[in-house]
Amino acid sequence: MNIRMTVHILGWVTCFEGLFLLPSCLVALVYQESEGMVYLALAALYLALGYAIAAGRKRPASGQFYARDGFVCVALTWILISVLGALPFIFTGDIPDPIDAIFETASGFTTTGATILSDVEALSKSSLFWRSFTHWLGGMGILVFMMAILPLSSGRNIHLMRAESPGPSVEKMVPKVRQSAALLYVIYTVLTLAELLLLLAGGMPFFEAITTSFSTAGTGGFAVLNSNMSGYSPYLQYVVTIFMLLFGINFNVYYLLLLRKFRTALLYEEMRWYLIVIAAATALIMWDIRNLFPTLEEVFRHSAFQVVSIITTTGFMSVDFDLWPKLSHTVLILLMFIGACAGSTGGGIKVSRWIILFKYLRTELRRLMHPRMISRFRLNGAVVGEEIIRSMLLYLVAYFLTFVLSLMVVSLEGYDLVTNFSALATCYNNVGPGLNLVGPTLNFSFYSSLSKLVFTADMLLGRLEVIPLLVLVSAASGSIRRLPGRGGRSRTAD
Amino acid sequence: MNIRMTVHILGWVTCFEGLFLLPSCLVALVYQESEGMVYLALAALYLALGYAIAAGRKRPASGQFYARDGFVCVALTWILISVLGALPFIFTGDIPDPIDAIFETASGFTTTGATILSDVEALSKSSLFWRSFTHWLGGMGILVFMMAILPLSSGRNIHLMRAESPGPSVEKMVPKVRQSAALLYVIYTVLTLAELLLLLAGGMPFFEAITTSFSTAGTGGFAVLNSNMSGYSPYLQYVVTIFMLLFGINFNVYYLLLLRKFRTALLYEEMRWYLIVIAAATALIMWDIRNLFPTLEEVFRHSAFQVVSIITTTGFMSVDFDLWPKLSHTVLILLMFIGACAGSTGGGIKVSRWIILFKYLRTELRRLMHPRMISRFRLNGAVVGEEIIRSMLLYLVAYFLTFVLSLMVVSLEGYDLVTNFSALATCYNNVGPGLNLVGPTLNFSFYSSLSKLVFTADMLLGRLEVIPLLVLVSAASGSIRRLPGRGGRSRTAD
Repeated sequence: MNIRMTVHILGWVTCFEGLFLLPSCLVALVYQESEGMVYLALAALYLALGYAIAAGRKRPASGQFYARDGFVCVALTWILISVLGALPFIFTGDIPDPIDAIFETASGFTTTGATILSDVEALSKSSLFWRSFTHWLGGMGILVFMMAILPLSSGRNIHLMRAESPGPSVEKMVPKVRQSAALLYVIYTVLTLAELLLLLAGGMPFFEAITTSFSTAGTGGFAVLNSNMSGYSPYLQYVVTIFMLLFGINFNVYYLLLLRKFRTALLYEEMRWYLIVIAAATALIMWDIRNLFPTLEEVFRHSAFQVVSIITTTGFMSVDFDLWPKLSHTVLILLMFIGACAGSTGGGIKVSRWIILFKYLRTELRRLMHPRMISRFRLNGAVVGEEIIRSMLLYLVAYFLTFVLSLMVVSLEGYDLVTNFSALATCYNNVGPGLNLVGPTLNFSFYSSLSKLVFTADMLLGRLEVIPLLVLVSAASGSIRRLPGRGGRSRTAD
Repeated sequence: MNIRMTVHILGWVTCFEGLFLLPSCLVALVYQESEGMVYLALAALYLALGYAIAAGRKRPASGQFYARDGFVCVALTWILISVLGALPFIFTGDIPDPIDAIFETASGFTTTGATILSDVEALSKSSLFWRSFTHWLGGMGILVFMMAILPLSSGRNIHLMRAESPGPSVEKMVPKVRQSAALLYVIYTVLTLAELLLLLAGGMPFFEAITTSFSTAGTGGFAVLNSNMSGYSPYLQYVVTIFMLLFGINFNVYYLLLLRKFRTALLYEEMRWYLIVIAAATALIMWDIRNLFPTLEEVFRHSAFQVVSIITTTGFMSVDFDLWPKLSHTVLILLMFIGACAGSTGGGIKVSRWIILFKYLRTELRRLMHPRMISRFRLNGAVVGEEIIRSMLLYLVAYFLTFVLSLMVVSLEGYDLVTNFSALATCYNNVGPGLNLVGPTLNFSFYSSLSKLVFTADMLLGRLEVIPLLVLVSAASGSIRRLPGRGGRSRTAD
């Protein structure tokens, strides 16, 4: 383990978290809220502490920085930002319970959008802003953001980017990691601004428009009104639907569009399937809820809004879909597991992984039929190598096992299967709302602290795609085992 | 494809199915039922037809018989026996609808035990016997049975045995496949007889005792009374519990006991975990239902009965567990996916696969930590090779995808998620009862024919562990694609 480098990076993370709190101070200033003092004090503290750790001591000149260091570093970063980001909620008194505050912050950074609040509007404006801002920051990645600005770990950033970016593989848009990170954030910012302008054009108040834009961009789902998106005009709901859809697409497509490679962009395989699934699910749900609304336009609008909201793992709602018929419930639950495109801000298993899974199955079956056949397949035009398949299967196994273990722990509470399962599915896939007791108009506050911690862990597992956190646990238990006095243990597994 | 050999084997399968129908004729004779004539006529037909196909023409002397031939042959065998075995139900009028009859027969042979009958006792005794007998035949495998008797495919039986036997790997007990098959059936028969005697000793009528023994041995779950096992004395319920438990253990353990290798047998890793899971689940459910019964003995008996019944994928019930609290439901649903030990008559994913999954995850995580480490692990004392892991991951992917696709089709019916999900889980894992509308006192008759066909396919997928049927589909679609006039297609996947 490269501990010095890890501490150095975590120092910078603390520092940046201080920076990230500053906009909330501005909001407090505008709305004349005393909560701003808490945000200011914490920002100053994080900046000073972080800078002391990161820049105060000599930057570690070199030392190896392996893939495992990348995993551990990313895992620690996300735990750190969730804890540090929870303190303002606690000290302002907006969310006094520490477990609740950490749940809410992790839900923000992981762009889940699940909440323990029953009355969102009771929060101070500065906290509401912070809540939505965490979505925006978490969507594209904290370390990716830092990379775009700082020369972090002297050229070995690719391990960090790989560990933090969602999807089966990281395609660098440009050869240098740092430029790739910067480019991602430019596209991200431009799209966010575009949504902001279109929402303002539709008459949405500025505060609501900017927080909604942040939540949409990160595919998060926190809203500042108790009515979520259900009170807005059809125009605003369509704008949000379209931007949720856009933020669920692989950002490589936008880069291809920037390069004027329109044909390649439009034929991007993952996007095609993403749009096909959305169209099919919308059609199914339209048929299922055809009698619930007076006009076809409303049937279409609410079906499309919910489908896009769930598959992109945003989690906004334009209507309480917990009241919809059973078929719609099943479709929405399945969409949670499909998720958005890799390389987008969305969560879930990702469309590209499903494509790879199907192609892998087909290829392996053909190999059983014709043992001498060369079994290879392509995704988005590129051959999917052994290494990608191997790591995807590992991801799948880890996802599956941690999901089942979490379900066991959460089930101890004795709520019904639909509540527990949909709560876990929505947290693990970073969606937000579930069904039944955790339906879109309800919240997670009734769960015990233990279950809330499990959900928090699952949100992080989902956002970081399981492996980084497991490597951290594995590294930690390995260190404990190697402590003096506990005796040596062989490194080969039994 | 070795088509001649496949036809030869299917001929023998037809022939044996004729033989298998004869005991039902005997039952009809004892109970003076006219339905016996149907069984006799069909038995004669199958024997004649099968013998004409199998022995009438010259036995294919050689020709290659690859793994894929084994898969295709096993898949076709199981489809064939399900269709042929359904005819007696149709022609006796006991189950007049063909789809229902095929569902019931597949449920029998796959040892699922899910039924479309609301009143089991209305059936003729000959049909009731046939229903339970299919469990016994399907439990250890039809082809394994034939192998024990016939020199089937001249020494290449291992591909058939591999494809039909459950579990991640087939451990031959003795070097020769044929002796292994015979030995399995000897152990199986002795255990079945032991249960029969103990049930008779407890005062169970002979007909009920023999059908219950067949159902237990195959871990099936069909009962001949509408009250299932709930009307029997505690003694009888304990006997059934213990034998369900025994039939869920890897038969290698019994072989080790026969060889007097007691230490090795008792330390068999898979069995240890199997018993640990059973103990833990029983304790959890005892705590959950502690107030539902007056005495601790009853709480224990019903908890243990249901846990063992579900994890071994038998599916008997001693009490309507659909009325139990939510925690028990979740535990039982999870047990369905765990399943029994490999090399037993039970279904599900199998305890050994779960152990391999956990060890694989741990080993791969360590490999991420220490890239130069040799990553190997053992199961039951033997190193688990790359090939086993590879085929297990393929199984898992195929299981996962076919499960989700089935859920999509079944969901179109609009029943609630718990009903559809538990129905699918119970069919795919060959358990029997589900929750809610398919609870232990209810049945599958309300589903549409399409859904029933999906459930039937899933029972076969579960019993044959997915790959054989997918290879069959793959082979069939490959043949269609190569038909003249449809143009050649490249064999490399895109």
